[in-house]
Amino acid sequence: MRFVHESPPQRVRFASGEAAGALGEEVDRLGASRVMVIAAPPEARLAEEVTAGLPVVHRHDDVAMHVPLAVAERARNAARDRGVDLVVTVGGGSTTGLGKAVALTTGLPVVAVPTTYAGSEATSVWGLTEDGRKTTGTDARVLPRAVVYDAALTVSLPVPMSVASGLNALAHCVDSMWGPRADPIDRVLAAEGARALAAGLPKITAEPTGLAGREQALYATYLSARAFSSAGSGLHHKICHVLGGRYNLPHAQTHAVVLPHVLAFNAPAAPEAEERLAAAFGASSAIEGLHRLRQAVDAPKALRDYGFEERDIDPVVPAILESVPEGNPRAVTAGDVRRLLHAAWEGADPRTPSTEREN
Amino acid sequence: MRFVHESPPQRVRFASGEAAGALGEEVDRLGASRVMVIAAPPEARLAEEVTAGLPVVHRHDDVAMHVPLAVAERARNAARDRGVDLVVTVGGGSTTGLGKAVALTTGLPVVAVPTTYAGSEATSVWGLTEDGRKTTGTDARVLPRAVVYDAALTVSLPVPMSVASGLNALAHCVDSMWGPRADPIDRVLAAEGARALAAGLPKITAEPTGLAGREQALYATYLSARAFSSAGSGLHHKICHVLGGRYNLPHAQTHAVVLPHVLAFNAPAAPEAEERLAAAFGASSAIEGLHRLRQAVDAPKALRDYGFEERDIDPVVPAILESVPEGNPRAVTAGDVRRLLHAAWEGADPRTPSTEREN
Repeated sequence: MRFVHESPPQRVRFASGEAAGALGEEVDRLGASRVMVIAAPPEARLAEEVTAGLPVVHRHDDVAMHVPLAVAERARNAARDRGVDLVVTVGGGSTTGLGKAVALTTGLPVVAVPTTYAGSEATSVWGLTEDGRKTTGTDARVLPRAVVYDAALTVSLPVPMSVASGLNALAHCVDSMWGPRADPIDRVLAAEGARALAAGLPKITAEPTGLAGREQALYATYLSARAFSSAGSGLHHKICHVLGGRYNLPHAQTHAVVLPHVLAFNAPAAPEAEERLAAAFGASSAIEGLHRLRQAVDAPKALRDYGFEERDIDPVVPAILESVPEGNPRAVTAGDVRRLLHAAWEGADPRTPSTEREN
Repeated sequence: MRFVHESPPQRVRFASGEAAGALGEEVDRLGASRVMVIAAPPEARLAEEVTAGLPVVHRHDDVAMHVPLAVAERARNAARDRGVDLVVTVGGGSTTGLGKAVALTTGLPVVAVPTTYAGSEATSVWGLTEDGRKTTGTDARVLPRAVVYDAALTVSLPVPMSVASGLNALAHCVDSMWGPRADPIDRVLAAEGARALAAGLPKITAEPTGLAGREQALYATYLSARAFSSAGSGLHHKICHVLGGRYNLPHAQTHAVVLPHVLAFNAPAAPEAEERLAAAFGASSAIEGLHRLRQAVDAPKALRDYGFEERDIDPVVPAILESVPEGNPRAVTAGDVRRLLHAAWEGADPRTPSTEREN
């Protein structure tokens, strides 16, 4: 047993239906008196409700995907010009990401109020884009000091988006089982996240406006992000990163489709992951459990439905092979990647080993 | 789902047989150049080996149980006089506690190297004794910045002490299920701790010099302390605190004896605790699993073996009733406490409900 586990300092608060009050208390605790609220236009009204009781000196709605540097600079300048002493973000990954970009250069504390299951609020990872190139890094200053999770704020997230976002969180859980720095604590948190998603996502599809499923999804989001940022990207995220970067595939759907095929590939060689995930899904095996969950929520099935062509498989194999993380439970060959991508392209049943299908 | 969960910042490192190297790296990371090493005389040689590579300016062996204020003052003065910039503790709860007492007033960072399963290294709780009165408090400054867990350092802990110390850690796990601030994350960590103790303690009794069981016990120690310091004292610790304070009973043995009776009392009213602990023990029920573990490690059985008399039961009932924590899964009556203490006094089989025995 040899591992290092870091617990970065953060206060999280689960407060369904009570975001405004909880947020007020967190801002008070941090002693802030000049708050900047970041929220994209679609979340503007929600953000106003949630932050109505705060000492707001600036509302900032200039948000864009992947945090372009120019957008970050405008937000940083606004914070400086207005003498802001705390940033509140209300929104999904891009909004939280902009708050982190402000914190990165100003050191201002951030309190995040997430409205999706992206999980950025629970990591020290920042990202910025310049001329279409994304730079990412890790810095303790960007980790929000506090997070307020209010399931009521995610009720308006449409069911297909909720499912895709939830399966993205599940991908964090699964890859945390064998990421390059994965440790037993990561695996425990990730398994609990998987359990909560398996319980929560079918509730969201069955009753989209109910809070029970969405509370589970937010709880799992937090656990999955903590585990994943400790464990680092495993094989699944490496594959999706290469595919996404090269073919501009939709992020969440790509994850949803590829995940069962990576699990089917790695799990037989990762007994602890297999056991923990099977138990989390309450199924006879990890892959059977994931399959059942995907059926229950009508998950995206095939990459060919999202613009990936069969002829795209061979050219991308070398880049994926190069990115295989050290310590993956199984060695990965070109043939393995080809079979895995083929199965994901056609939407094959991941419970049938791809080697058998090829024979 | 409404709860607050705080993650205090800490870096833990599991490095069996490699404490010296790991400790050197942690001290380097913190940029220290004038280290004070605290270790009691029995651990002096061990501490010298482990800290041989450090820039030590002072070795301090003036350690005493419950950290008397005078002892703390001497250590603080030594740290000031020698221009110390980091404190390393090598030892059990009292040694870690002295390091925390130094940190409390000086703000010096502490790196802890535990040699028992006490768990103090993973909490922000400090304790000081003056004129026989113990004062405790919580302060972020006393939490060690880093912990190096090396199972090889605990091999010399005799088996009965290892069992008692391990069951003390298990009591942290069980009480974390229903402590006043217990949240789902505490329960997940506590259940994982219980699983590791159930796996590890029988290995320690079977092979005291082996590392496998002791690694599990240290891992569980860390998880149990994190969970417990978040959840707060539940019914079990309140009972033991009253008994220990009034009758001067041995700490670890008291916990070991009382625990199954509290579990038998609370678990039927705490379904999540029951389910998680039963799964952790791999048993049909939580109490059955704990019973099996206690049998396997020949755990202390009856309070009457440790100086507690049958006539002591009635007088202590009111003090225990007063200390029952808010939110305990079951209401607690005087009759309940009397039956529980009677069962613990005589060492009754906790699987037989005490109400049945009384009928």
